[in-house]
Amino acid sequence: MSMSEFRSDTSMITLTTDFGTTDWFVAVMKGVITAFNPKAHFTDISHHISPGNIREAAFVLKQALPWFPEKTIHLAVVDPGVGTSRRSLIIETDSQYLVGPDNGIFSWALLDMEIVRIIRLDATRFSSPVSSTFHGRDLFAPAAARLSSGENPLNLGEQTHSMIQIDWPQHEVTKDGFLGQVLHKDRFGNLITNLPSTCISTDDMRKLFEVRSHGKVLPIKIHSTYHLASSNNPALISASTGFLEFAIKDGSAAHQMGWEAGQSFELIR
Amino acid sequence: MSMSEFRSDTSMITLTTDFGTTDWFVAVMKGVITAFNPKAHFTDISHHISPGNIREAAFVLKQALPWFPEKTIHLAVVDPGVGTSRRSLIIETDSQYLVGPDNGIFSWALLDMEIVRIIRLDATRFSSPVSSTFHGRDLFAPAAARLSSGENPLNLGEQTHSMIQIDWPQHEVTKDGFLGQVLHKDRFGNLITNLPSTCISTDDMRKLFEVRSHGKVLPIKIHSTYHLASSNNPALISASTGFLEFAIKDGSAAHQMGWEAGQSFELIR
Amino acid sequence: MSMSEFRSDTSMITLTTDFGTTDWFVAVMKGVITAFNPKAHFTDISHHISPGNIREAAFVLKQALPWFPEKTIHLAVVDPGVGTSRRSLIIETDSQYLVGPDNGIFSWALLDMEIVRIIRLDATRFSSPVSSTFHGRDLFAPAAARLSSGENPLNLGEQTHSMIQIDWPQHEVTKDGFLGQVLHKDRFGNLITNLPSTCISTDDMRKLFEVRSHGKVLPIKIHSTYHLASSNNPALISASTGFLEFAIKDGSAAHQMGWEAGQSFELIR
Repeated sequence: MSMSEFRSDTSMITLTTDFGTTDWFVAVMKGVITAFNPKAHFTDISHHISPGNIREAAFVLKQALPWFPEKTIHLAVVDPGVGTSRRSLIIETDSQYLVGPDNGIFSWALLDMEIVRIIRLDATRFSSPVSSTFHGRDLFAPAAARLSSGENPLNLGEQTHSMIQIDWPQHEVTKDGFLGQVLHKDRFGNLITNLPSTCISTDDMRKLFEVRSHGKVLPIKIHSTYHLASSNNPALISASTGFLEFAIKDGSAAHQMGWEAGQSFELIR
Repeated sequence: MSMSEFRSDTSMITLTTDFGTTDWFVAVMKGVITAFNPKAHFTDISHHISPGNIREAAFVLKQALPWFPEKTIHLAVVDPGVGTSRRSLIIETDSQYLVGPDNGIFSWALLDMEIVRIIRLDATRFSSPVSSTFHGRDLFAPAAARLSSGENPLNLGEQTHSMIQIDWPQHEVTKDGFLGQVLHKDRFGNLITNLPSTCISTDDMRKLFEVRSHGKVLPIKIHSTYHLASSNNPALISASTGFLEFAIKDGSAAHQMGWEAGQSFELIR
Repeated sequence: MSMSEFRSDTSMITLTTDFGTTDWFVAVMKGVITAFNPKAHFTDISHHISPGNIREAAFVLKQALPWFPEKTIHLAVVDPGVGTSRRSLIIETDSQYLVGPDNGIFSWALLDMEIVRIIRLDATRFSSPVSSTFHGRDLFAPAAARLSSGENPLNLGEQTHSMIQIDWPQHEVTKDGFLGQVLHKDRFGNLITNLPSTCISTDDMRKLFEVRSHGKVLPIKIHSTYHLASSNNPALISASTGFLEFAIKDGSAAHQMGWEAGQSFELIR
């Protein structure tokens, strides 16, 4: 592969932050990258992660990353520890580059990838001074820009063999069913759980289940599409995420159930 | 025109959804398209359509589409019927490609275009399995990607001659004026109606009109620019949309009038 | 420099508006530009400026613009005076092009640039009719498109030597400290002030200061990073903006202090 082809391959950069889109933070990162590599182009994954919520970002990244082409550079900055001793990383996988703070933000996306090597970014290898409050601008964006220009990641820091990992919130199989929790509330108020759709067989689609949580019991049906759910009673949908999610038709299950991310429950056959 | 020119012509893809921008849904569609056609580039029209509100999307598309260059591919996914028997379409017009569910979402944009042919997408012609909950990712994005690479739409499905249409909410001319309704509330709280600006002559700009709705009567002036409106009393503005809109200066007419999309009224000379 | 290089240099266009992202306004501007110059590409700075708030836009632009490459075209449309006699400008600086209404929106960004010349846009030099309510679409976007295609700014209007300026809200040095004000509340609820970080020496980082505002007195520490702030008591952070900002750890200083942009205060050593 020629250098010019390599550059073109790595020119797609995604961004995932808790910066919002009202202030200049995201634009500044794009400006920094474009000034270094005018051929870079961007896809915003989300800038509306709840402030400092690393687990929320980890789930969004897990859902988004498998759909991007090889050699995409994924920049993720949800970084409550900026300016402390927390390290800054490039994680090179079998298919993609991940750039962000060493706080576990990529843990759940990495469950679907092979790690090739981990590089700890060395601030002294970047020409501009690095502020203590905005590493997105001063360290991660320049690192992504240099990667996207075809630079060797080893130019940007030293290889390391450890990083912070956030455990996947594994569901449990019980005598009567499954113990699970809500991982994410989406825009529609659907509540995405950690129960893999594979927990449920095609036969289960016709049966009535029960959901128990904090002393309450809820009858529940399992469907393959939102349209089959009732608009009054939440159903569990075997959804595009690979996980079961609570949903109601034409409304917000989160609102009707009063549930948020983190709610634990038992699903009983 | 050479193939490479054709490809370049069709590489602009717009996206209109009710997915919001907090979750990964939009990014995943862009990832899928980029993986297939790295030269595709995107313009987001809106991802904040109210959940499932096809009419709102139809009006946004009607306003946006005329301003895009020829051969732009417009992907629109407001899709409460996903996973049911509702069909999936490519609509080829004299100037653009429209890709989305067969639920009328493009009806009002099509009032300004000539339809060349309608293709019903055939899921079996797409290599990946198609989920029953996210056709944006599994069917519409791949279809847009293949169109943007210069593929013949007839490769993606069979031609059809019918589709679902939503009637345009036509205003009525009455003895004393016009019967109209509010079609859209914009970010500023301006209330865009279905009364074409051409209802109003230059002479009318100086006269006092009356608006009647649900038993209330409101004196109203018609102006050519927001700045001429009062900050206390709503005016009707002959605006850039081609329709009259209720507005107040430096504030929200929707808030002050307590009106939303759907409100009907009579405008009396 | 060859023409083709020049074109490539000026193909990056940023957009800053109060249009929101729910309606079609931003997309229409991008469509207009793309129809004229298919090679243009866009970076959104912010579309969530409070409606009509020129000072808020001026601060966002001041923060964002220094990070973009030379010859970037910055389009800014917060334009409560659209359709009045307010003029429309291209401001050519030593490094960038600024396009927008003559209402002071670029005043604070220009504090860091040298003005080369100011061109007053002449609507008669644009082929399409210009509406009286959406100059973003009808005048500023076409002007940016033509600049991005390498056209001479003097083709688009006549040179002028005056424009409206908004004074920078200068802090004052007092007997005991500084008089300042809050310029911006960011997504995290941090309150960015007009006190330059250079007001504070490294020694000051260890001392306790006092903030007085509207009769209330607040003890305050100054830190170099958010993580060192308390989660109960606001601190002043010497931040990436070059200004001191009020912040609390893992929360919103704005919420806890009940302050907004515009709040004035005295910082006392």
